[in-house]
Amino acid sequence: MNTNSIRKLFEQVRAGKVSPDEAVQRLRHLPFEDLGFAKVDHHRALRAGMPEVIFGQGKTPAQLATIFSRLAKHEGNILATRADKEQFAAVKKKVRRAEYREPARSIVLQRDKEKYGKGIIAIVSAGTSDIPVAEEAVVTAEIMGNDVERLYDVGVAGIHRLLANRRTLTRARVIVVCAGMEGALPSVVGGLVGVPVIAVPTSVGYGAAFKGVAAMLGMMNSCASNVSVVNIDNGFGAGYVASLINRL
Amino acid sequence: MNTNSIRKLFEQVRAGKVSPDEAVQRLRHLPFEDLGFAKVDHHRALRAGMPEVIFGQGKTPAQLATIFSRLAKHEGNILATRADKEQFAAVKKKVRRAEYREPARSIVLQRDKEKYGKGIIAIVSAGTSDIPVAEEAVVTAEIMGNDVERLYDVGVAGIHRLLANRRTLTRARVIVVCAGMEGALPSVVGGLVGVPVIAVPTSVGYGAAFKGVAAMLGMMNSCASNVSVVNIDNGFGAGYVASLINRL
Amino acid sequence: MNTNSIRKLFEQVRAGKVSPDEAVQRLRHLPFEDLGFAKVDHHRALRAGMPEVIFGQGKTPAQLATIFSRLAKHEGNILATRADKEQFAAVKKKVRRAEYREPARSIVLQRDKEKYGKGIIAIVSAGTSDIPVAEEAVVTAEIMGNDVERLYDVGVAGIHRLLANRRTLTRARVIVVCAGMEGALPSVVGGLVGVPVIAVPTSVGYGAAFKGVAAMLGMMNSCASNVSVVNIDNGFGAGYVASLINRL
Amino acid sequence: MNTNSIRKLFEQVRAGKVSPDEAVQRLRHLPFEDLGFAKVDHHRALRAGMPEVIFGQGKTPAQLATIFSRLAKHEGNILATRADKEQFAAVKKKVRRAEYREPARSIVLQRDKEKYGKGIIAIVSAGTSDIPVAEEAVVTAEIMGNDVERLYDVGVAGIHRLLANRRTLTRARVIVVCAGMEGALPSVVGGLVGVPVIAVPTSVGYGAAFKGVAAMLGMMNSCASNVSVVNIDNGFGAGYVASLINRL
Amino acid sequence: MNTNSIRKLFEQVRAGKVSPDEAVQRLRHLPFEDLGFAKVDHHRALRAGMPEVIFGQGKTPAQLATIFSRLAKHEGNILATRADKEQFAAVKKKVRRAEYREPARSIVLQRDKEKYGKGIIAIVSAGTSDIPVAEEAVVTAEIMGNDVERLYDVGVAGIHRLLANRRTLTRARVIVVCAGMEGALPSVVGGLVGVPVIAVPTSVGYGAAFKGVAAMLGMMNSCASNVSVVNIDNGFGAGYVASLINRL
Amino acid sequence: MNTNSIRKLFEQVRAGKVSPDEAVQRLRHLPFEDLGFAKVDHHRALRAGMPEVIFGQGKTPAQLATIFSRLAKHEGNILATRADKEQFAAVKKKVRRAEYREPARSIVLQRDKEKYGKGIIAIVSAGTSDIPVAEEAVVTAEIMGNDVERLYDVGVAGIHRLLANRRTLTRARVIVVCAGMEGALPSVVGGLVGVPVIAVPTSVGYGAAFKGVAAMLGMMNSCASNVSVVNIDNGFGAGYVASLINRL
Amino acid sequence: MNTNSIRKLFEQVRAGKVSPDEAVQRLRHLPFEDLGFAKVDHHRALRAGMPEVIFGQGKTPAQLATIFSRLAKHEGNILATRADKEQFAAVKKKVRRAEYREPARSIVLQRDKEKYGKGIIAIVSAGTSDIPVAEEAVVTAEIMGNDVERLYDVGVAGIHRLLANRRTLTRARVIVVCAGMEGALPSVVGGLVGVPVIAVPTSVGYGAAFKGVAAMLGMMNSCASNVSVVNIDNGFGAGYVASLINRL
Amino acid sequence: MNTNSIRKLFEQVRAGKVSPDEAVQRLRHLPFEDLGFAKVDHHRALRAGMPEVIFGQGKTPAQLATIFSRLAKHEGNILATRADKEQFAAVKKKVRRAEYREPARSIVLQRDKEKYGKGIIAIVSAGTSDIPVAEEAVVTAEIMGNDVERLYDVGVAGIHRLLANRRTLTRARVIVVCAGMEGALPSVVGGLVGVPVIAVPTSVGYGAAFKGVAAMLGMMNSCASNVSVVNIDNGFGAGYVASLINRL
Repeated sequence: MNTNSIRKLFEQVRAGKVSPDEAVQRLRHLPFEDLGFAKVDHHRALRAGMPEVIFGQGKTPAQLATIFSRLAKHEGNILATRADKEQFAAVKKKVRRAEYREPARSIVLQRDKEKYGKGIIAIVSAGTSDIPVAEEAVVTAEIMGNDVERLYDVGVAGIHRLLANRRTLTRARVIVVCAGMEGALPSVVGGLVGVPVIAVPTSVGYGAAFKGVAAMLGMMNSCASNVSVVNIDNGFGAGYVASLINRL
Repeated sequence: MNTNSIRKLFEQVRAGKVSPDEAVQRLRHLPFEDLGFAKVDHHRALRAGMPEVIFGQGKTPAQLATIFSRLAKHEGNILATRADKEQFAAVKKKVRRAEYREPARSIVLQRDKEKYGKGIIAIVSAGTSDIPVAEEAVVTAEIMGNDVERLYDVGVAGIHRLLANRRTLTRARVIVVCAGMEGALPSVVGGLVGVPVIAVPTSVGYGAAFKGVAAMLGMMNSCASNVSVVNIDNGFGAGYVASLINRL
Repeated sequence: MNTNSIRKLFEQVRAGKVSPDEAVQRLRHLPFEDLGFAKVDHHRALRAGMPEVIFGQGKTPAQLATIFSRLAKHEGNILATRADKEQFAAVKKKVRRAEYREPARSIVLQRDKEKYGKGIIAIVSAGTSDIPVAEEAVVTAEIMGNDVERLYDVGVAGIHRLLANRRTLTRARVIVVCAGMEGALPSVVGGLVGVPVIAVPTSVGYGAAFKGVAAMLGMMNSCASNVSVVNIDNGFGAGYVASLINRL
Repeated sequence: MNTNSIRKLFEQVRAGKVSPDEAVQRLRHLPFEDLGFAKVDHHRALRAGMPEVIFGQGKTPAQLATIFSRLAKHEGNILATRADKEQFAAVKKKVRRAEYREPARSIVLQRDKEKYGKGIIAIVSAGTSDIPVAEEAVVTAEIMGNDVERLYDVGVAGIHRLLANRRTLTRARVIVVCAGMEGALPSVVGGLVGVPVIAVPTSVGYGAAFKGVAAMLGMMNSCASNVSVVNIDNGFGAGYVASLINRL
Repeated sequence: MNTNSIRKLFEQVRAGKVSPDEAVQRLRHLPFEDLGFAKVDHHRALRAGMPEVIFGQGKTPAQLATIFSRLAKHEGNILATRADKEQFAAVKKKVRRAEYREPARSIVLQRDKEKYGKGIIAIVSAGTSDIPVAEEAVVTAEIMGNDVERLYDVGVAGIHRLLANRRTLTRARVIVVCAGMEGALPSVVGGLVGVPVIAVPTSVGYGAAFKGVAAMLGMMNSCASNVSVVNIDNGFGAGYVASLINRL
Repeated sequence: MNTNSIRKLFEQVRAGKVSPDEAVQRLRHLPFEDLGFAKVDHHRALRAGMPEVIFGQGKTPAQLATIFSRLAKHEGNILATRADKEQFAAVKKKVRRAEYREPARSIVLQRDKEKYGKGIIAIVSAGTSDIPVAEEAVVTAEIMGNDVERLYDVGVAGIHRLLANRRTLTRARVIVVCAGMEGALPSVVGGLVGVPVIAVPTSVGYGAAFKGVAAMLGMMNSCASNVSVVNIDNGFGAGYVASLINRL
Repeated sequence: MNTNSIRKLFEQVRAGKVSPDEAVQRLRHLPFEDLGFAKVDHHRALRAGMPEVIFGQGKTPAQLATIFSRLAKHEGNILATRADKEQFAAVKKKVRRAEYREPARSIVLQRDKEKYGKGIIAIVSAGTSDIPVAEEAVVTAEIMGNDVERLYDVGVAGIHRLLANRRTLTRARVIVVCAGMEGALPSVVGGLVGVPVIAVPTSVGYGAAFKGVAAMLGMMNSCASNVSVVNIDNGFGAGYVASLINRL
Repeated sequence: MNTNSIRKLFEQVRAGKVSPDEAVQRLRHLPFEDLGFAKVDHHRALRAGMPEVIFGQGKTPAQLATIFSRLAKHEGNILATRADKEQFAAVKKKVRRAEYREPARSIVLQRDKEKYGKGIIAIVSAGTSDIPVAEEAVVTAEIMGNDVERLYDVGVAGIHRLLANRRTLTRARVIVVCAGMEGALPSVVGGLVGVPVIAVPTSVGYGAAFKGVAAMLGMMNSCASNVSVVNIDNGFGAGYVASLINRL
């Protein structure tokens, strides 16, 4: 039941075909969720520039291609994360304009190219191994209409590489920081700027890194007050949150 | 907005005072939750014999007494779990008919004494130290209108104590089993009966018992297929689930 | 030693062929388990509609086929969970009427088609990746003689999908809820209904999901009192417990 | 060495009193950090409306009072978190205008009352036990110049309480959600809005709640993409991040 | 139902007062556990020199005294572990011959002083802080009729203290080793002897000792093949197992 | 330096060829370990019937064959655990009398067939999946000269299978119990007998079994006092400890 | 048996009072540890400036005073860590020259004031709450004869405080870094210097800091190659290791 | 901007081409890091004999070869750890003098063969499975200009193998100890010497070894005060720290 069917009900009431009591009864038995007009409108507004997102990992190339092409029938951008080249080949056959962003392991179809972000999102990585996660954040932020600046391989054990590029940090309206191992970089970055920092622990490291747990705990305990954290390797989530902030 | 106010809206539409379009607009701006008639009715039905429950731990005697007496103004039963004698004294002053169930560390006010349960709920404990948790399940089941049979101190290291009392188990329509340490009892009980077993890990034990974690893991991995698990020391939850099952 | 052999002993005693003292001696040396008549009867009653169950994972196709066909010689239903197509092919050769339920990764032989369940079991999943676990619950409930309704992909981040289908929930006599990641769905479902909810954490997710641990802990701590939990990915266990409850 | 001293060096070079080579030598031996003019300016700008913050827990009343009064000599707002009444009494003696916010367990001295936030920050709590953490976020956001709306006791097991108040959520420019136990609320809230959600796991719960770990893991794995997380019970951090976002 | 009552049943059958069929019926309804003659005898044999054991921790002095004195009415030895002096005072009033073993924090009543152990049990501790646990093993072994030799404070960081006392080790028929922190001592001791070593992790240590977890894991992974492990701080269990071995 | 060389030194001293002072000097520079006569003797005695043991996992067939054949040049038995058929093929080429014990995944060369054990070692397993671990214990015990009785698939969820075979348990002088999942079987077995029980957690199970951790914790917390524990899947260790006990 | 007694034995052999064979016998029965001359000498050398150390925590004032005064009878320095003022008062009564180092919670008796360290040990702390641990390292290094420079409250969220004091770091021959929460400081310090860095995780922090575990994991995974780690809060250990290095 | 460019600025100031104020402005906008002359010099000094290091794991042969050959264009030594033979083949084609150290799984190019270490570094391993990690430490120490002595397979369960080689330990200026399973060896070694011991937990072991966690915890809790720890399997880190110490 949408706006139209409710209007029809009211018209039937006005026409005397349905009594008010019966109308109440009918409403009573509707799944009330369907009354949620505002929600629909609201969501449409919200969705401007929001990509449809598919988590590619664990899906067969055929499955991914099917979902991707089905979504491609509507307007808007599409992002498939954790996708490999084989999956991309399958998608490409069905959606010719789809592109593969190799370092981000993502498939994108960007049709809405409007800028929704008001400033720059800086995406920072501690090491070169963190780059795939960082690039997932980059591609997410870009497809959501943001200008992005990358600052890679500026881990805390060579603090001067970071400081030498502080200008990139201070230019940003919101910053995403990806780091594995001890996950210390968000704290240092957080201390250098006065804007929100989204920290992404990565599964980079070995031994007591516990596949990102050490980094995650480090970031949760950041001594910088402007840091919040998303899941291990969740570059998409960080790019998404940063994009929402950059729209405000 | 309740049934009446919606009926009024329909009547205004019929009277031509409000146009269908405007009526749709008004509905659009209602918090739709308030349309949830069924929910209210449904909940009332659901609540028959359901106690109002207060988690006593961490509340001052005064706080607990205030909440308890406020709830006591409505009909129905009240259960305050994890309550000590000092809290009870405060409650007693305000609600004279409240009673203290010492082994369960619970305060009860039972006004609805109808039997809602169709059969017997057996409450089993592995050791004597598990009894407070088991008694919390007992008092919960009783206040929800069930007949309860206790079977205590029948841990697996003395399996014959359990087997000697198998009749109690086979009489039950649903069984709650409380055990700490290795938490093995639900598996053995589960293997002896063909009814649902609700397992409650308790924080009884020391060292590698990790305050109930060992028992919880044991129960989660039960080799008996009829076992499901609630939180550590959550006698209330087990009694509640068992009561719901016993009403079916 | 069964009922007959014991009766024979008594007859020998009556016939004077065996003295009471010697009879006591003979009983003394019996494995008393064999005296468990009630157990045998009881189990037979209990077993009505209960499937024989094989855990397929880790077994070779040949092993699985052998076990399956051996069980098929007796009456009743057979369920092999965590089985792949190759295993099914091997089973199919020996037991022609066996069927493969692909989404549930299960092999079934359903000969007893009586309805043992008194109402409907709703099987709910948070996401599409949880479906194999949910389907394992479905196939278990069905082979145990229950009517099942599915409600899939109604995770908490889109709460209206769930609310729009609340009728399915309220129709159910018992509900199984499968969810990975944060495992929040059982709490929401639990709050909407007054019947037992069996929660199944799934290993869906990555990073801090820890292969189902995050979901399991979330479910153990559910703020809804009608929730109990089975092991990670244990769709079978949930379907089994739900079936037992639905028979009551 | 500040701007002046560097200018002096240049003037000495121009005056020929110091050779370029020697000037290079002098610079070489400076702690280069002291060259960070921009940093100083930047920080001053950044600090507008930022409170000085003291973590009260573990400090004696005397220690806290000393630190508080020393900071009070400069301009700006002061916030002492995790402070009890005894600590407040000691502070009050030295800083008469200090106030105690009991539910937030915080001492505040708010002299800068300018509004720095552009919209409303909604602070949501799942249960009443989460309120102290939520109030810490409230007091932080307020002292940083934000309008705050509270939405308390809207946990997921009674989802309609939340939905009935959805308007508060949709009005907010950024939302803080505090929840213990299974920590599911941020996912539900995140799914209802299109703005950033800062999730705060609280140590509310018992048993397998592991003092906030279950909630933290749940939030890290949120299926809503707009959720990022801060440390357990870190209401201050959430309020701080939300305030930074609300200034953008 | 004991031997007599079964004999009586047979006699009634022989006398024709009870038909074989009815006799079978009667047996069928007996809790079969009560048929376990052998078990009773067996247990009596087993129990020779076995103490009745009470876990004192968490019991009030009155509770402990009541249990202790009740057990004291039967023959045999009694051991209350984890008991403090206040509890002992209460016991002493009721059972005059009870004694307190301070370093073991145990109350003992030793009436059966026969030697059941065939050789010497060596009880070894790594540090002085492990002594209470070691002494709990000592008192357990002694009350079960064993000769004990102590070897304390011979931790691995001063390996020569251990080697200098190797004779004590080689004299022993079974060895108990108590160690906290890294829990390395059982491996070294195990490598020096050819007899079973029972390892007891203790909660001695701080930080990453995690209250005995580090020691427990170390012992579980012992590179000496003759080591098995009991729970953290479980001196009683180690003394008990060692005593059983020493009786063989 | 062995006994002879020391005697020679003394003789040189007596002959006046070496002064006492110089003799002290010589001793001072000896690796004193070589003085350990007793140790050598002792070890020789100890080793009677002790197998040389090789941990096969992770070794190439060539490596394993080389080590095995080198050891085969000395007398005594050899046991290679965690070995597959390919490794065995390589060993077999070099050591013709080597045999493969498939269920135990072990290669054995048994030349010393003397019985060193005084009684029977019972090896018990909870499920069929635990059999490889149990068989590793069997082969270890047998090669060390023991009589073994197996009791498999007697898990706690079908307690009567265990009780029906209690005679096997009561005949044993020491018992090894292998169980995965909740690891409850050692507690039940421990309660039925008065001899030492060596518990082996196995990695059988899934989800919250955590590859044997749940079973290990369960066994560490056994409520039966006669249980001690070895590492997860360590059938060899259990068989070894049991053999040492059975020699006493 | 020391050098003298062995010489005596040789003299008896030379004098013909003891035959070589008998001498061998006597040696054979000596605890051979006592032959370890070199060890004794070596240890004496090693011990120069090494303090006798007492772990004060958990000891009564009387116990601590007794141990302290007994050690004070020998030469050399004494250090009691984790000691409070009450314990110090008891020590002071027996050993008048003992001093209390309040921030380090340590009691010292420094009689050997020679400098054993060749350079400076820098002791760095991230926050003010880490100071007690840092001071324990300071007092340990000082009593072992080292020059120490402190650098406190230079956590990574304010990286310029650290950089402004880089000279202190570059002057040091070895550096101890104490940090709680995310434990990131050692990585940054490690990257700035070319000398060994000893990292001490502290239990400072709350929530997901897990009493130092987050910091410990961070440090174990340091991306700086010159970092090694000691136990949580183990300022003593860090000071000890640093002192050993500084002597080289 | 390097020294030259700054000197040029000063010359322009002296020549009156740039005013002091403008010069200050220019400096202000420089990334000040580039002013860090001392740092550069310092690092050059520091780097004498320091290898460039590449973590080979996870890199394709082509990637590794590219990085390796690029680094080979500068002077100095190069070390690629965690590299396999295929990677080496690719490197060898580009850098003919590169060598493969098989047991260490490392590729080395050693051009600077000067001795930087002042004494011997002893590298000790508990078992043969720990050798790859130990050899990684060896190759690191050697390429950094140290004399190394190996002492392998001296685990604590055969303590005499270690003691018999104590001379190697006492000769060393710094010791690296690699051990898996219970990780006890560093404590024993630490107790035998008076020099720094760097402990490396290895992932050797199974079950409760948790891939090195048990060993790591054991080492963190070492009762020997001279032990510090690096990450699991981090032979490189241990060799690096030991080399830095040995240069002092």
